[in-house]
Amino acid sequence: MTHMPSEIPIPETRHLIPDLVIGVDIGGTSIKLGVVNLEKGKILREISFKTPNATAKETAEILARHVNVLIHQYPDITSIGIGVPGAMNLDRTLAQYPPNFPKWEIEPFAQYVKEALPISELVVMDNDAKVAALAESKFGSAIGEKFFMLATLGTGIGGAIVADGKIFRGAYGGAGEFGHIMINYQGPESNSGIRGVLEAYLGQKYLSDSTLEKLKDGKIKSSLRTFLPGGSLEPKDIYEAAQAGDAFAKEVLSEAGFILGIGFATIATLLDIRIFIVSGGVAQAGDLILNSARESLKKNVLAHQRDSVEIRVSKLVTSAGVIGAALLTVAEKM
Amino acid sequence: MTHMPSEIPIPETRHLIPDLVIGVDIGGTSIKLGVVNLEKGKILREISFKTPNATAKETAEILARHVNVLIHQYPDITSIGIGVPGAMNLDRTLAQYPPNFPKWEIEPFAQYVKEALPISELVVMDNDAKVAALAESKFGSAIGEKFFMLATLGTGIGGAIVADGKIFRGAYGGAGEFGHIMINYQGPESNSGIRGVLEAYLGQKYLSDSTLEKLKDGKIKSSLRTFLPGGSLEPKDIYEAAQAGDAFAKEVLSEAGFILGIGFATIATLLDIRIFIVSGGVAQAGDLILNSARESLKKNVLAHQRDSVEIRVSKLVTSAGVIGAALLTVAEKM
Repeated sequence: MTHMPSEIPIPETRHLIPDLVIGVDIGGTSIKLGVVNLEKGKILREISFKTPNATAKETAEILARHVNVLIHQYPDITSIGIGVPGAMNLDRTLAQYPPNFPKWEIEPFAQYVKEALPISELVVMDNDAKVAALAESKFGSAIGEKFFMLATLGTGIGGAIVADGKIFRGAYGGAGEFGHIMINYQGPESNSGIRGVLEAYLGQKYLSDSTLEKLKDGKIKSSLRTFLPGGSLEPKDIYEAAQAGDAFAKEVLSEAGFILGIGFATIATLLDIRIFIVSGGVAQAGDLILNSARESLKKNVLAHQRDSVEIRVSKLVTSAGVIGAALLTVAEKM
Repeated sequence: MTHMPSEIPIPETRHLIPDLVIGVDIGGTSIKLGVVNLEKGKILREISFKTPNATAKETAEILARHVNVLIHQYPDITSIGIGVPGAMNLDRTLAQYPPNFPKWEIEPFAQYVKEALPISELVVMDNDAKVAALAESKFGSAIGEKFFMLATLGTGIGGAIVADGKIFRGAYGGAGEFGHIMINYQGPESNSGIRGVLEAYLGQKYLSDSTLEKLKDGKIKSSLRTFLPGGSLEPKDIYEAAQAGDAFAKEVLSEAGFILGIGFATIATLLDIRIFIVSGGVAQAGDLILNSARESLKKNVLAHQRDSVEIRVSKLVTSAGVIGAALLTVAEKM
């Protein structure tokens, strides 16, 4: 029996989008993993655990145990995407010295995870900010935008530059390390050992520590004084105090926004990119940070850019990491 | 009579490279224009004049008179390429607010020049640093490099980012404004009105002014004291003093290099570009600036980049602007 050519099914050039995959977001404070419906961009089930102070291989083994919990519940899942902090190499097989992971060096992390799992057809990874940008461009605040920059404001500060619809990776794959650009060469040292980088002002730990330091001045009136002298102040405590009207907390966030705007201005000046998306935990402070960020961005760009620069909040908020990581499993090289 | 197909000349897909064109380099201090042999990348005849404190249209008219002098000597020339400071729009028809040209706004400068000339088939322009990058990639220090950044160190500080063999222009065409990235948000103001940008440390005027300011401290021993109190110190006077062994002049240039290295480190961090080419007047100080630039570049990049970052001196030195501008007349959109 012969078929007419038109009856022969045309082979798919890309493999079918599987219904469900696992996305993993490796953060400096916690690791989140979720079962993601890729067509809808929704997380069906999510678990998280505290980021261990461990080597990359040990971290991969701990992660694999949690992945197995999800696979036990969703046994058809065979693909895993991972967002990892730190600059990637060009083919995205190695995560390189993520600054908030002191026991990691140059690590084939996806390979470690694959080896630690009984079954898995596909384990892929990319830089965490890049996966968040992927998520925002498919389901979030950057749909249809060909040029934008996404900044992840969390324990560390990450970045992804999207130019002409593609992630800009540079000569060796490590482009976008927004948290490590210097905004004050006379400023404080960060985890990377470089002075006055953005992360040394905006990273969660630095934001908390510098706030506690300021509170040691007994003249400051603030509800945050209750965190002295223990020191377990979290950025969300600062937002909550600010939202409740605490003037000092508002000032802290406004200053953080000022610094963020300066960082974005550097990107606008250098790359003539004018849309900025903020994602990650610290971004949840919203306008408490972003109003002053918008002001300092406008003030510090070149005159012809001033009226067109724009800061948007991630629509996917803290789920961008997990959803974007899941998208890696089907994304063509972006 | 018929020809065999093989005998029919194959039409050129690009128009023939004319032997000679005019390249123009609009600088903050002087405007240079030259007759360039495009095949050899050589300037046959060059003239220059002091940059007038004038509107763009007036400047174009003055330039046109000098162009006519060259065309009188080389009457076959019909194409002119111009390197202009300031960010360009995406199709390179408008120069936008060049910071060292207070009377310029958003200007169709090439069009003004064309209108002021009796004949000319082609007048094209691009940002001055972009044309220098074009020159270096064809005839200079960047032959064969797919990713590099060129910085022009002159009255202003310009930049061109080359990524994957093309000039990176950003969303609106103005990318690469290296002189206006902020390296110290608490620093001095520049011509752009933004605090602590690179140009506020390395621009010729700032370098001269800050050197004279330091010399007011009577305890500093330096041959440069002879420039007090008149104030006509030029960067080349600083190099010459440094080359003659003046410790203070050496220190001034070393500090300038330190700042330059910080700026390059920002590019390496953000774009993972690791080759930097310095061009323009101030670059003539060579290792007097570049040794400390190399040191601070290495110190301020991420660990995995440290051993591979590199600063090269322009091979074309101050002729890159004129040669690159000439290349614009035949370059496909780079």
